[in-house]
Amino acid sequence: MRLLVIGGVAAGLSAASRARRIDASMEITVLEKGPVISYGACGLPYWMEGQVRRAEELVTYTPEFFRRERNIDVRTGAEVAAISPHKRQVTLVSGETLRWDKLVIATGARVERREGGFVLQNMEDAERLRAYLERTQPARAVVVGAGYIGLELVTALRARGWRVTLLDRGSYLLKPGDSALTQALRDHLARHRVEVQLGPYEFVPTAELTIHATGFAPNVTLAQQAGVDLGPTGAIRVTDRMETNLASVYAAGDCAETVNLVSGAPAWIPLGTTANKMGRVAGANAAGRRERFAGVVGTSIVRVCGLGVGVAGLSEAEAKQAGMRPVSARVEALDRAKYFHGRKTVVELVASRSDGRLLGATVLGYHGVEGRINVVAAALQSRMTVEKFLEIDLAYAPPFAPVADPLLLAARRLGDEI
Amino acid sequence: MRLLVIGGVAAGLSAASRARRIDASMEITVLEKGPVISYGACGLPYWMEGQVRRAEELVTYTPEFFRRERNIDVRTGAEVAAISPHKRQVTLVSGETLRWDKLVIATGARVERREGGFVLQNMEDAERLRAYLERTQPARAVVVGAGYIGLELVTALRARGWRVTLLDRGSYLLKPGDSALTQALRDHLARHRVEVQLGPYEFVPTAELTIHATGFAPNVTLAQQAGVDLGPTGAIRVTDRMETNLASVYAAGDCAETVNLVSGAPAWIPLGTTANKMGRVAGANAAGRRERFAGVVGTSIVRVCGLGVGVAGLSEAEAKQAGMRPVSARVEALDRAKYFHGRKTVVELVASRSDGRLLGATVLGYHGVEGRINVVAAALQSRMTVEKFLEIDLAYAPPFAPVADPLLLAARRLGDEI
Repeated sequence: MRLLVIGGVAAGLSAASRARRIDASMEITVLEKGPVISYGACGLPYWMEGQVRRAEELVTYTPEFFRRERNIDVRTGAEVAAISPHKRQVTLVSGETLRWDKLVIATGARVERREGGFVLQNMEDAERLRAYLERTQPARAVVVGAGYIGLELVTALRARGWRVTLLDRGSYLLKPGDSALTQALRDHLARHRVEVQLGPYEFVPTAELTIHATGFAPNVTLAQQAGVDLGPTGAIRVTDRMETNLASVYAAGDCAETVNLVSGAPAWIPLGTTANKMGRVAGANAAGRRERFAGVVGTSIVRVCGLGVGVAGLSEAEAKQAGMRPVSARVEALDRAKYFHGRKTVVELVASRSDGRLLGATVLGYHGVEGRINVVAAALQSRMTVEKFLEIDLAYAPPFAPVADPLLLAARRLGDEI
Repeated sequence: MRLLVIGGVAAGLSAASRARRIDASMEITVLEKGPVISYGACGLPYWMEGQVRRAEELVTYTPEFFRRERNIDVRTGAEVAAISPHKRQVTLVSGETLRWDKLVIATGARVERREGGFVLQNMEDAERLRAYLERTQPARAVVVGAGYIGLELVTALRARGWRVTLLDRGSYLLKPGDSALTQALRDHLARHRVEVQLGPYEFVPTAELTIHATGFAPNVTLAQQAGVDLGPTGAIRVTDRMETNLASVYAAGDCAETVNLVSGAPAWIPLGTTANKMGRVAGANAAGRRERFAGVVGTSIVRVCGLGVGVAGLSEAEAKQAGMRPVSARVEALDRAKYFHGRKTVVELVASRSDGRLLGATVLGYHGVEGRINVVAAALQSRMTVEKFLEIDLAYAPPFAPVADPLLLAARRLGDEI
């Protein structure tokens, strides 16, 4: 049995590793078009910031590791030109063809590349940017795109002391439709002297450094040409077993669609954690298991100039769009006991007015943001009502949390609204 | 309608406040035998450590606040001598009698007081200890009792540079029956030069300061004398509406029993968070609502010489004792991305071999312990299986967590065992 995986980052390597663990005899090959595999793209902004000293630290595994430790043939510089589902083979740009019995497509996301600016998607981008930074000493930068990558870049540039303008064509920061979050982030960025320009623009203002963090899309060209169906989000449509419409062809990671478990709708939320989970399930099923990945609740977290920002589930606007009747409550409270450096944290919870089910949350703060948003993620996963959420037995001791956790305070207020 | 509440700390004040919020016309009186109300007993070890500068900082509310802001009559120094359920009245030690239509018993816990040592249960204890510390400059201390209060005291004393011996008659630290946790804590305490002596002893070794953190029990004398039933734990038996066996008599907080939702068994786990929740429900029902408090999953957290220790649910030993067939898995992993000061954290998960349900967890570490144990608490609350737990959409970004969260790594290993 031959397993072929296209893509050597999160989803692809997870799929290959899981398949190997399940089936020691399978022949497994991973094709990566770039020069390195397994790089932590999520670490690139931190490398820019100076937290990561050498870009090489971002590379977790080498092809040699996979060959030696997992008996997986990982080939870099191996760009696939075409997939032929009927012949069960792929053709590389070099002309070489490879046969497969099972195929996992893990081609990731692509980013729109424009003239006159940088993008920061992979190690080559990082190297290119590094060379530029060594040549010039830019003092003013423009970041285009107010999603989480844009915000991470802004944070990195400010940490280096540069003047930064953040630009986005839309009207929101981080989460489309979320006015409260946008305002909170605007205020925070203003305090950190980041100029924010939202709304349509014709030209990106000239600056010594422009980084585009926009135009991300699933990389589906190969799949589409092979007859793989896409879903409404533009990413590859898969079942909860990561099967595409073609027999023995799986897709996983940033090129594939998943389900938002809160709204029930197809979702494209490209994140390394999700990619790993999808990859594991694709690999397991390609190796003959029957595993499922049900979907996500849309959890994400980003640090914006020191402030932690966590979101999960649906914002009030998203819930309305999904045809629900949402109600929300927002509290500001201390994140720990006052005498343990407690600082203000903001928790907003959204619930459905019709059945009291929790729908989403936003948490802003300097401590414990990841923990609180993760509790909400667990609650959303099991479709908890606000009433049930109020009963969660959260840990308390003064060094860790206040006696009435901000999550509970918000849930109480929300309970009063329902 | 007259509501009488016996006890002016967490549960009692929560009950009174909630009742007032629901019913503006109720006559509400809180009787507290001590000189202050609403003190954060949980803060006393930190006050000793020097984190809290003035003991007064631990008092959140005054009787005046309750009178002025909530129209609740809070009387300090008002010790109840007897409850007469048939007459619906209580008699104070002073001889005064007070009538009630609804009664909430929130008499808390008591601690065994011994000759020749200190206890640290309330503000008077704290003041007494402070006076002693001002007179002498003890350099060597013995803490008796290896529960969370004992461990907090050890931490406080070590932070002040004293030599500390920790003594316990049992064979375990923090959680009876948990050998792995005991060993991990023993090693950690040894690194911090705390001498630990477990097992039977005849005499407490002489030291300049001895603090007893042992012999805690529900304070049920008054209730018992009035004919209120106790449960198997020795605390007051209540329904999930906080009703006792006597009509119109509720109990809440450290004097009352609750249910461990994981084992389904009655439990006595005296904690401020639980006391507040029980108090709110008792107050709501006393004011005519129909609310429930289903129980706890046994979450707690303590900082031991810098190390965060979180537990939730059942240990493997407890699960066996409850007649289950537990299986456990333990991982050591980084708590954040390596380049974000990631440090080692230990996660142990316990599940039921028969149905794959998650039963409990222990988390040790220096960062994110409260968040991870809280995710487990939420999962236990909704009776998640390990398979479902693996799907929780946990937040990821390098400043907050590693891409494969230690919780997921442990759950994967556990999944392999089931």
